[in-house]
Amino acid sequence: MKPLGIGLIGTGYMGKCHALAWNAVAPVFGDVARPRLVHLADANADLATRQATALGFEKSTGDWRDLIADPAVDVVSITTPNAFHPEMAIAALNAGKHVWCEKPMAPHFADAEAMAAAAKASGRVAVLGYNYIQNPLVRHIGKLLDEGSIGTVHSVRVEMDEDFMADPEALFYWKSEASSGYGALDDFGVHPLSIITTLLGPVERVMADLAKPFATRPTADRKSREVETFDIANILLRLSGDIAGAVQLSRSAWGRKGRIAIQIFGSHGTIAYDQERMNELQLFTREGRASEQGFRTILAAPNHPPYDKFIPAPGHGLGFNELKIIEAREVLRAIGGEPAHIIDFAKGLEIERAVHAMAHSHRDGRWVSL
Amino acid sequence: MKPLGIGLIGTGYMGKCHALAWNAVAPVFGDVARPRLVHLADANADLATRQATALGFEKSTGDWRDLIADPAVDVVSITTPNAFHPEMAIAALNAGKHVWCEKPMAPHFADAEAMAAAAKASGRVAVLGYNYIQNPLVRHIGKLLDEGSIGTVHSVRVEMDEDFMADPEALFYWKSEASSGYGALDDFGVHPLSIITTLLGPVERVMADLAKPFATRPTADRKSREVETFDIANILLRLSGDIAGAVQLSRSAWGRKGRIAIQIFGSHGTIAYDQERMNELQLFTREGRASEQGFRTILAAPNHPPYDKFIPAPGHGLGFNELKIIEAREVLRAIGGEPAHIIDFAKGLEIERAVHAMAHSHRDGRWVSL
Amino acid sequence: MKPLGIGLIGTGYMGKCHALAWNAVAPVFGDVARPRLVHLADANADLATRQATALGFEKSTGDWRDLIADPAVDVVSITTPNAFHPEMAIAALNAGKHVWCEKPMAPHFADAEAMAAAAKASGRVAVLGYNYIQNPLVRHIGKLLDEGSIGTVHSVRVEMDEDFMADPEALFYWKSEASSGYGALDDFGVHPLSIITTLLGPVERVMADLAKPFATRPTADRKSREVETFDIANILLRLSGDIAGAVQLSRSAWGRKGRIAIQIFGSHGTIAYDQERMNELQLFTREGRASEQGFRTILAAPNHPPYDKFIPAPGHGLGFNELKIIEAREVLRAIGGEPAHIIDFAKGLEIERAVHAMAHSHRDGRWVSL
Amino acid sequence: MKPLGIGLIGTGYMGKCHALAWNAVAPVFGDVARPRLVHLADANADLATRQATALGFEKSTGDWRDLIADPAVDVVSITTPNAFHPEMAIAALNAGKHVWCEKPMAPHFADAEAMAAAAKASGRVAVLGYNYIQNPLVRHIGKLLDEGSIGTVHSVRVEMDEDFMADPEALFYWKSEASSGYGALDDFGVHPLSIITTLLGPVERVMADLAKPFATRPTADRKSREVETFDIANILLRLSGDIAGAVQLSRSAWGRKGRIAIQIFGSHGTIAYDQERMNELQLFTREGRASEQGFRTILAAPNHPPYDKFIPAPGHGLGFNELKIIEAREVLRAIGGEPAHIIDFAKGLEIERAVHAMAHSHRDGRWVSL
Repeated sequence: MKPLGIGLIGTGYMGKCHALAWNAVAPVFGDVARPRLVHLADANADLATRQATALGFEKSTGDWRDLIADPAVDVVSITTPNAFHPEMAIAALNAGKHVWCEKPMAPHFADAEAMAAAAKASGRVAVLGYNYIQNPLVRHIGKLLDEGSIGTVHSVRVEMDEDFMADPEALFYWKSEASSGYGALDDFGVHPLSIITTLLGPVERVMADLAKPFATRPTADRKSREVETFDIANILLRLSGDIAGAVQLSRSAWGRKGRIAIQIFGSHGTIAYDQERMNELQLFTREGRASEQGFRTILAAPNHPPYDKFIPAPGHGLGFNELKIIEAREVLRAIGGEPAHIIDFAKGLEIERAVHAMAHSHRDGRWVSL
Repeated sequence: MKPLGIGLIGTGYMGKCHALAWNAVAPVFGDVARPRLVHLADANADLATRQATALGFEKSTGDWRDLIADPAVDVVSITTPNAFHPEMAIAALNAGKHVWCEKPMAPHFADAEAMAAAAKASGRVAVLGYNYIQNPLVRHIGKLLDEGSIGTVHSVRVEMDEDFMADPEALFYWKSEASSGYGALDDFGVHPLSIITTLLGPVERVMADLAKPFATRPTADRKSREVETFDIANILLRLSGDIAGAVQLSRSAWGRKGRIAIQIFGSHGTIAYDQERMNELQLFTREGRASEQGFRTILAAPNHPPYDKFIPAPGHGLGFNELKIIEAREVLRAIGGEPAHIIDFAKGLEIERAVHAMAHSHRDGRWVSL
Repeated sequence: MKPLGIGLIGTGYMGKCHALAWNAVAPVFGDVARPRLVHLADANADLATRQATALGFEKSTGDWRDLIADPAVDVVSITTPNAFHPEMAIAALNAGKHVWCEKPMAPHFADAEAMAAAAKASGRVAVLGYNYIQNPLVRHIGKLLDEGSIGTVHSVRVEMDEDFMADPEALFYWKSEASSGYGALDDFGVHPLSIITTLLGPVERVMADLAKPFATRPTADRKSREVETFDIANILLRLSGDIAGAVQLSRSAWGRKGRIAIQIFGSHGTIAYDQERMNELQLFTREGRASEQGFRTILAAPNHPPYDKFIPAPGHGLGFNELKIIEAREVLRAIGGEPAHIIDFAKGLEIERAVHAMAHSHRDGRWVSL
Repeated sequence: MKPLGIGLIGTGYMGKCHALAWNAVAPVFGDVARPRLVHLADANADLATRQATALGFEKSTGDWRDLIADPAVDVVSITTPNAFHPEMAIAALNAGKHVWCEKPMAPHFADAEAMAAAAKASGRVAVLGYNYIQNPLVRHIGKLLDEGSIGTVHSVRVEMDEDFMADPEALFYWKSEASSGYGALDDFGVHPLSIITTLLGPVERVMADLAKPFATRPTADRKSREVETFDIANILLRLSGDIAGAVQLSRSAWGRKGRIAIQIFGSHGTIAYDQERMNELQLFTREGRASEQGFRTILAAPNHPPYDKFIPAPGHGLGFNELKIIEAREVLRAIGGEPAHIIDFAKGLEIERAVHAMAHSHRDGRWVSL
């Protein structure tokens, strides 16, 4: 099979993460042709040139349209700020490229709808970068649920917390502007939703409370400016099957760096997981003698595929970046027409729909059904 | 000072806990006269007799009114099921006794109001058994907050979980009957509320979602019966100062045995605590070099009074029952006219008010202000 | 049955702990006559008087011989510094009293031998205060081992660490004098030995390395004095059945407050425990599917007797002082002629023998057999 | 700069790990020329061919001598079983290649000496694959020690445990043959030694106790065979500066999968680390008010270089394989003549010397000085 040609738009955090994943996917999995890193785009053409060298791309450009026009490019990785996703993704799809776009889809729901429509019309693979669902242990949660290990699930809780907005003395920047979105809700909310909807099914109704920990933030000229976004979101929800859910999101939670703490409660047991300890899973089942029951800490191991593709020994641990390598493999599976563990634009649209419904429920002070 | 005479109504879990506390408070604290354990009442007179011997009471009765009529009784501990609290507490107060009553006050708000009114009218001390606020580490959280260790608090989360209703195959019993109350909401909700309102101030508005993990439960005759109470409650709330809160309660959470997990987020740090590890406190502050910041695990120690009254060495650990000994000391302080760290009937009424508001918010699907 | 009369020598940390235990044992267990707190002795007669009032003793004295001569005293609790144990314990036994003496027995092995001989000759109960073996979870480890839950044990590790000698700038005091003993070895070593010999059988040979973290310590006159004891001890040992052991002891381990961390490895599983989290037990067994194996955290619960005597609900937690209440119950069992879970003077002598053998192995740089 | 040509001998666990590291080092670090994956050798020529394709090597061979003779190869990665290391490494060095060889050096000390001599004579870079020292948090421990964060170190403990030999019913295989070495001592011991000697300085004297958890193991023909190696090793040691050390090693520790637990005690604080939670560091310092002191859990972050080369966000986590990428960068640094954080053959020889001294101390039952 001719190797796929990769185009990458964006060279920041996620840009590098995509590049590393495309670079590693073939030797890690050993069963796919190594993709060619063809074209790298960044609005800053000089940066694009330097990063193409560093990351191993053949060509670079300051204009992402060049990349999409490049016939050697088969798949476009889009890792720019969210506001650019719709135009780029739609253009790429319309040009017949497969698309792997970072989440969320777009600040405005109508744009997300347009992206999903373009994906459908194109017949191309359009995948969103929800990497947390690729963690072998998160996948294993899915397997345990499917097997009925904890019986019928009746409730779920998720917390997602970081602290990059926790300091009230940090200068006002664009994440506090309304134009950036709602705040923690769309910045973070899509991640927990990607996990729980993958594991448990779609969201049916929501009720959110958005909060501003700090009414104003200082500006460079020693004045202050009113904060327009909500760094905190607390959400009640019901999932398919009337599963009761509670989601808490904060980007002002001092000390939390990458916390995504999930608790899933079933009729026969409980599963708990925290992304800050991404190589551990907590499982309680009511099996055996009561005096020895307890949450067991399961360490990631080769029997949680595809951990085995990375390391043949248990308990040695995967890293965040390696989730993206797994995701790249799934993108390739989808392109190859195989069943793939992905969130495509159609499923992603449902996540966005839930996020906007949450914002409306906050505004109106009542439950909103999807 | 003449020792106080103690009357105890009820000989179950909390009855014994009160008896042990009254028995230990003098030697532990060393600064109060040892109370006389005068009278023990239980509806089962034989049991009352046996338990009086076991627990060290001078007299016993099958009729609690005897106990309240006993002039040797100065303080009445009430540890019966909640439905009996109003009649007993009001009778005791009207008889001029001090009252130490287990929580919550009463299933019906009007009864709780009557209890608070009786307490006010009597001029006697009327304390509710909210023992978790007595944990030296929970008190230390209060001190840290007062000192501004984590700056201005902007959000809080509490989870309270046990698993005694987690098994769908367990037989239907009175806790699933509507007459017992709302379910987890009043069964558990008062505990987190006792802690967060003591630490952070009163509740201002609430929005709850109550859920039934199991629609029916089996009965002894191999049929099944519809469950009338809600074993799960998820709550959004705002506290005084517009602190955003999220509370989750479940008595169907497999594997959780006594979890009361609190996270308090401030402008300068975060505090976390879990009653299942009641001798540990987690504190994150943004002090020092970033590369060494982290949550620190603080072990209970003599510098968290009144831990020192129990053990002069740090890290050796207190137990749940010892919280009740501390509480007994506070009851004695209140009776002695000293400032006491207690939740009296007036404060307790506000907790009940919040619980009922939560139930209303669930029923109506909208926020309810207090 | 006529209640036993208690005499208590010493009013410090352990003195109070014994007093609280004697005070609580009857109501907690509900099946024994309440002991009479008869006589309290402290070298400081005024302190003895005050503490007798605070702790609830009928009489006090500045001369412990008065207490031993008191016919109302049936059992003598000895909680003075170790050097006084032999004379007091032997006098009490010779006077026909039962003895409950804090550990270790004595600084000199010959004295410990004399104590054991006196106990044997007297026919009285002579128990050492090894309270850690009374923890319901430590007892449960014993049950698990007896049941073969982890198969045949082949190795064990114990660490015991505190930090009260960790500060090199703290003034020299008697614990650094050779007259106080070897240092961490006898100060701490007896605790781990009490646990592992109770659980696994006697020590057969030992090899120790004692170390001084600080060669000198400052004195009050701003000079310094050479340290004569070893605050650190690392020990290799073999237990009965050729179980390989490693013990590490430190009283200079910053941050450790009451750590006694045990790991027991068997042919079918592993058990781990840490006294700093005394209400948790870690158990790994190779049962079930490998992908769900893991250490399970078992919370102390009523099904770990005698936890049930304190609290009927699981996961609520016992405290350090409550171990002493359990121990008091065992002392009463022994006095009543029932099988008791205790370390008597005969067993205690074997622990002391092991400690001295460790010191000799360090001195000689070779293994010493017992 | 002309890219370096890489030859890799071995295609197992570590072979793949080296291949992935060579593949990723350039895009991760962005400051080195991408190495050419030139030649792959495996005794099984067919496997070599398949793996060359999978891992991205240009050529393959069934004879490692071809690879060493290949002028396009500049650096040889050696990942075969230990017994092959000497011949291959010496041949590669004699052929003027740089060598990156997995640890330990060789089963026999004389061979390790020959390897070190060949490295010295060659003037080439010869690095051992001690990847654990590359963990950004382990490096950060080094920085903290250098800065005096915990004062003067006086003691250290290390445990290294896995459970691949824990099952007594597993069939006898070569790891139980004396020809494979001492057992856990050389199989595992080199890892803890690599870490503590890098952080704290050389080993000065040792005293070991080696143990066999199972005297025999079953064979395929339903008989049993005597075990010749020691799956457990407990070691006392003293490091430079008379630091007291205790090391425990077990490959029969059920439930442990990749545990390397280190505790370093100093005059001002304590550092603890466990490879099973490789993205966390525990630090206790005696700073600040005693009532808030505690071990703090530091999450790996960009301020622990070179974590920042992988992920710009804190707390997201690196994986085991990524340590090898860091190591590859250090190998390149060494080749480029820059200061590199490596264990070269000279330093590695000292580790082997300590291991053999431990075996001798066990045999003779006495301390052995190095």
